[in-house]
Amino acid sequence: MSFDIDKVRADFPILSTQVHGRPLVYLDSGASAQKPQVVIDAVSRAYAGEYANVHRGLHYLSNLATDRYEAVRGIIARFLGARDENEIVFTSGSTEGINLVSYAWAAPRLQPGDEILLSVLEHHANIVPWHFLRERQGVVLRWVEPDPDGSLPADKVLEAVGPRTRLIAITHMSNVTGTVVDVGAIARGTDVPVLVDGSQAAVHMPVDVQALGCDFYVITGHKLYGPSGSGAIWIRPERQAEMRPFLGGGDMIREVSRDAVSYADPPLRFEAGTPGIVNQIGLGAALDYLMALGMENIAAHEAGLRDYANERLGALNWLNIQGNAPDKGAIFSMTMQGAHAHDIATILDQRGIAVRAGTHCAMPLMQHYGLAASARASFAMYNTRAEVDALVDGLNFCHELFG
Amino acid sequence: MSFDIDKVRADFPILSTQVHGRPLVYLDSGASAQKPQVVIDAVSRAYAGEYANVHRGLHYLSNLATDRYEAVRGIIARFLGARDENEIVFTSGSTEGINLVSYAWAAPRLQPGDEILLSVLEHHANIVPWHFLRERQGVVLRWVEPDPDGSLPADKVLEAVGPRTRLIAITHMSNVTGTVVDVGAIARGTDVPVLVDGSQAAVHMPVDVQALGCDFYVITGHKLYGPSGSGAIWIRPERQAEMRPFLGGGDMIREVSRDAVSYADPPLRFEAGTPGIVNQIGLGAALDYLMALGMENIAAHEAGLRDYANERLGALNWLNIQGNAPDKGAIFSMTMQGAHAHDIATILDQRGIAVRAGTHCAMPLMQHYGLAASARASFAMYNTRAEVDALVDGLNFCHELFG
Repeated sequence: MSFDIDKVRADFPILSTQVHGRPLVYLDSGASAQKPQVVIDAVSRAYAGEYANVHRGLHYLSNLATDRYEAVRGIIARFLGARDENEIVFTSGSTEGINLVSYAWAAPRLQPGDEILLSVLEHHANIVPWHFLRERQGVVLRWVEPDPDGSLPADKVLEAVGPRTRLIAITHMSNVTGTVVDVGAIARGTDVPVLVDGSQAAVHMPVDVQALGCDFYVITGHKLYGPSGSGAIWIRPERQAEMRPFLGGGDMIREVSRDAVSYADPPLRFEAGTPGIVNQIGLGAALDYLMALGMENIAAHEAGLRDYANERLGALNWLNIQGNAPDKGAIFSMTMQGAHAHDIATILDQRGIAVRAGTHCAMPLMQHYGLAASARASFAMYNTRAEVDALVDGLNFCHELFG
Repeated sequence: MSFDIDKVRADFPILSTQVHGRPLVYLDSGASAQKPQVVIDAVSRAYAGEYANVHRGLHYLSNLATDRYEAVRGIIARFLGARDENEIVFTSGSTEGINLVSYAWAAPRLQPGDEILLSVLEHHANIVPWHFLRERQGVVLRWVEPDPDGSLPADKVLEAVGPRTRLIAITHMSNVTGTVVDVGAIARGTDVPVLVDGSQAAVHMPVDVQALGCDFYVITGHKLYGPSGSGAIWIRPERQAEMRPFLGGGDMIREVSRDAVSYADPPLRFEAGTPGIVNQIGLGAALDYLMALGMENIAAHEAGLRDYANERLGALNWLNIQGNAPDKGAIFSMTMQGAHAHDIATILDQRGIAVRAGTHCAMPLMQHYGLAASARASFAMYNTRAEVDALVDGLNFCHELFG
């Protein structure tokens, strides 16, 4: 399928709405993406005609819902290039996925003084679970800083690996600078297990976990044009085998008595209770939609947007952009002398342009840049060059007001 | 509003569908309830026109989504009779809610030899998280057995409280026998903190956590006619203050640096990452729908169904029903000499009747009854006497086949 931007935009009902009397220019997909009609329809259809609890039923609706739900495991496996769909564990999103690794794999294994290697680019979802291990059991966090342009060379990460490094937890794409990290070179360059936070990257480029050679790869549905509370983590079977259960409840057990409990095989072992059935069904529809468009085509469209935005934003000599790594994603964190990020966001909003302002759940990176806040425009597959122009017009207006 | 069963049924699109050419008779609401059109519409509307990430945005859609989402906290507080909406913590369901208490409150406080008091009626969601504490830190699980009719008198629970009892974790309504436990009398009769699993009870009767006097009250949205991945736990403020964070990530922090982290005030402290935004918005619509019908009216309707089912099922002298406590909910676990529960469920399914078969995530209770499995018919507000008749006809057909 070729990538037809007009057709793609028409698939997202919210994109034709107005905000403050102006056409919506949604440049906040880095926080959460909008949903195509196929996802909304998949969710409605499931609730209106194909709903029951899964796994435990023998009746028609339960079997149907189970089939629809479990099929998504295969869709996710295909989307991530996993060898086997049992390597996919459903989660409510990246936060649950990374906490699963922290509680189920790292907490029972790491000793005081053991180290986790992080980059300063990380999102709080890939920081706070490790701070828990620091607070609770004396694990040491080591940090790798990005280069001045926001790049994070694989060599730099590998050089920081020490004899006590037990895990490398690293983003595949920064949600602030758009920096793409060569996580494959990192994973292939060390025997230390590597957790990749793919929350941003998997939205914007093809991912093949087998080629990357990492151990854990985390995705979150709401950024992938899917429903709230959907997501998954790919876990290498060797690591799965090392994990103890995390959440306890129904569906993850083999047998329960008053005195003992035994656990189901993975992946169910890590999926306690009634799961996010319809959310995951909606995620399946979203990933099918993305794969039909082609992740290469999406990446090419967004690379065009990035280049155009680089050119137009780069011409604003009063605008600072944090990070300008080669081949970065189309995410632009911006500051402007004399204008607070929140004011920029508010003024852009009056023109129908949605951008985020704040620390973007990445305080260590903001501290690295010496910033209290920035305004962030994050582009997605449904954005256009005309929307880059609208952003530039809006920023010019801000500059006239505050400059 | 008076309770008009025809109108209620018309609100649920799936109830007018057919299964195997027969009208659907859905008697599996104990596993998960069907969704009224107002919930499906609330979900679709949110995705199609009112969606963005919450809390961190300054733009129109983010503010709108935040307002819609945070309003649900107040709706849940009203539904449960909480004093303050900040006593409500959003969860993805009961399993996450009970694990939150286990990891955030119990794990850091309980010493080896400390005891948790459970009833044999509990669902695995209210068992396995406590087995974790037994396996990992030497906590002792103590069990209270139901009376022969399935009742669990409050006195019996209170008599089992010992000097090492640190928590009572107990269901408000059994998902197998329908037994309603007087959790208020238990909570008022002891100083030991009481966690109430309200997964079933809150669907079928009015709940007032202040009157109950418990410490934790857990609900799950998918049983409450709400979306997948929605839910909440009410936590008494004194207990909230004793809890450490559970899931780490965005939104639950105050400040993060490389060396330190500080946490947001409750309830956000316990809500990490992008939450189940639209799922909770749908749950709000479901609870508004229930409160408009009136939980007393729903309880009265279901009491009528229970009495009629008791009468009709009780006349089948070849049918065993597990539990017949006074004022039980309209849930019937059944066995029949010579017929396996799975066969019963399969045969009923051919007649369009959806019941569950198995251990109902309550293996200790099944062991108590000496059963490998039972068939369970669980009624909800949209069920009718005619559906009781259909069930009885179906059971008679099973009896003819296997009897």
